[in-house]
Amino acid sequence: MRIAEIAPPWFTVPPRAYGGIELVVSFLADGLVARGHDVTLFAAAGSETKAELVSSAEHPPDSSLLGNVWFDTYHALHAYLRAEEFDVIHDHSGIVGPALGALLAGQPPVVHTVPGPWTESTRRYYSLIHERVHLVAISGAQRRDHEAMRFAATIHNGIDPQAYPFQPSKEDFLVYVGRANPDKGPTRAIEVARRAELPLAMIVKRSEPFERAYWEEIVVPMLTDDIEVYEGVSHDVKVDLLGRARAMIFPIDWPEPFGLVMIESMACGTPVITCPAGAAGEVVVDGVTGYLRETLDELVEAVAMVDRCDPAACRQRVEQSFTADAMVDAYDRLLSDVVARA
Amino acid sequence: MRIAEIAPPWFTVPPRAYGGIELVVSFLADGLVARGHDVTLFAAAGSETKAELVSSAEHPPDSSLLGNVWFDTYHALHAYLRAEEFDVIHDHSGIVGPALGALLAGQPPVVHTVPGPWTESTRRYYSLIHERVHLVAISGAQRRDHEAMRFAATIHNGIDPQAYPFQPSKEDFLVYVGRANPDKGPTRAIEVARRAELPLAMIVKRSEPFERAYWEEIVVPMLTDDIEVYEGVSHDVKVDLLGRARAMIFPIDWPEPFGLVMIESMACGTPVITCPAGAAGEVVVDGVTGYLRETLDELVEAVAMVDRCDPAACRQRVEQSFTADAMVDAYDRLLSDVVARA
Repeated sequence: MRIAEIAPPWFTVPPRAYGGIELVVSFLADGLVARGHDVTLFAAAGSETKAELVSSAEHPPDSSLLGNVWFDTYHALHAYLRAEEFDVIHDHSGIVGPALGALLAGQPPVVHTVPGPWTESTRRYYSLIHERVHLVAISGAQRRDHEAMRFAATIHNGIDPQAYPFQPSKEDFLVYVGRANPDKGPTRAIEVARRAELPLAMIVKRSEPFERAYWEEIVVPMLTDDIEVYEGVSHDVKVDLLGRARAMIFPIDWPEPFGLVMIESMACGTPVITCPAGAAGEVVVDGVTGYLRETLDELVEAVAMVDRCDPAACRQRVEQSFTADAMVDAYDRLLSDVVARA
Repeated sequence: MRIAEIAPPWFTVPPRAYGGIELVVSFLADGLVARGHDVTLFAAAGSETKAELVSSAEHPPDSSLLGNVWFDTYHALHAYLRAEEFDVIHDHSGIVGPALGALLAGQPPVVHTVPGPWTESTRRYYSLIHERVHLVAISGAQRRDHEAMRFAATIHNGIDPQAYPFQPSKEDFLVYVGRANPDKGPTRAIEVARRAELPLAMIVKRSEPFERAYWEEIVVPMLTDDIEVYEGVSHDVKVDLLGRARAMIFPIDWPEPFGLVMIESMACGTPVITCPAGAAGEVVVDGVTGYLRETLDELVEAVAMVDRCDPAACRQRVEQSFTADAMVDAYDRLLSDVVARA
């Protein structure tokens, strides 16, 4: 198959630091090439891939411009104007790309992996396009949250366990990974670590204006000497911190559509203490690879007993259910089906 | 002809206060209906038109969200998904709409009136679409600024002179109308009024975050008792201020693509003191309907001699060259041509 994979224009594939979508697209583009397909990847300049790379600009735009409609539109249009060269287009971009895809009337068919949770805006938008593009949910929770929407498949995200060294021996600190946004609960993570009397390593993304403001106004006043903050770290630094931590504290306060950092943590042998929201219950096995708890008290209690979760069980969970290989196989089947029916 | 007119989603057509594009679209939609066409207007809820109104949302989004890609994309897609119902689509929206139009491959043809000046981003974007949609320049200056771009026509904006009472007797103050943005030169307007020892009436738009910050940080410290600030004023208040002012001071510092407020001012019989940038020299006849001057000193000198410009000559300039009727006729010819060639 001649496949176009469209990543967002903002970060390289794979990402140098933050970028869950870009990590998934990296596995997909390389994996589909390995399975014999002719893959063109539309992604930021500087991306590294086994596919043919096409970048709409010489450099990725500064991430402080995230959401600026010019870059999203230019990048997506740049790809869709070449639609006739492909048997199928697989689009991971935000909003403009799938809208362009909806106008193609199936020539070629367009598959769109829905990246985020449902809001009033996304419900209205996807209701215009769900019968014109093939939507993929990244979790059962995301799909169940809006059953009126037509989905072609549910395909969990996956990672390459080889890239996540297994670390069975733990040190006395917690780790948090997430955007500086109340959805991801950084202040609750700080509160849990304080009450559990453990140091906290925070790997944060705070590049967008709202994130910077939230970080400065809400999070900074809560920081103490026991908290180390990391930003823009490499993969190696991230997996080292993830592997050595006693647990990841991921006290989400939104319908997490998947939560890639949870499987990254488990792959390193580190259990995840999170809240029963969105896809968390599909990813974490309560009492085995971490804990799903609602309140601050319960989260603190979970930290106290997290040693009961076997690092090997965490690793095994990822190897059995969340590998990039399984994900690529599932997309390969879906794309083949969609092309056969076109 | 079955014509779709697409306005941006942000303000009603016609606008209640700020909204140059919405004013032009209002004349076009009504004028094309009056000429016997079947016109559907995609515009914000609450718009008033002789065309069939279709709104993508119950209320226009708050203007502080201007530029939010969800609203632009949803609104444009909502219109373009009905493309087959029309012989021609005339799009006044910002970025996403014309990108969708470019994918239609001429079925039906899409005409896009370019709203803004050229930037690095717009040059790159329009170079992708200029052979797929029929671009209309709103001034010769806008078109000459980027001659590599293929334009179908240059059509000046126009207004209905009836809606602008002619006021030949003037009072001792200047008037400024514009966004709170350095492009429009509000601080230079204040400086000119101060040095000319005249009060200044400022009709400003400051709804977007950058505009609010610029206003608070840069403009507010320069305000004095001699300056009256108006925001969100009705048409009646605006034309009353425009008509009574000795002159409009419009010291632009960007390649103004047209400058609708200049013809609104002249229609009221009020000369315009502006700078030789963008379309200003096509709109203002130097020494007859105002002055084109570069420096602050020259602008102050122009204020001192502005009584030499006859209010009747200002009015006549609009009646002869910038009426809505002439504009609608020009678009009617262009749309008919485009449909005939499709």
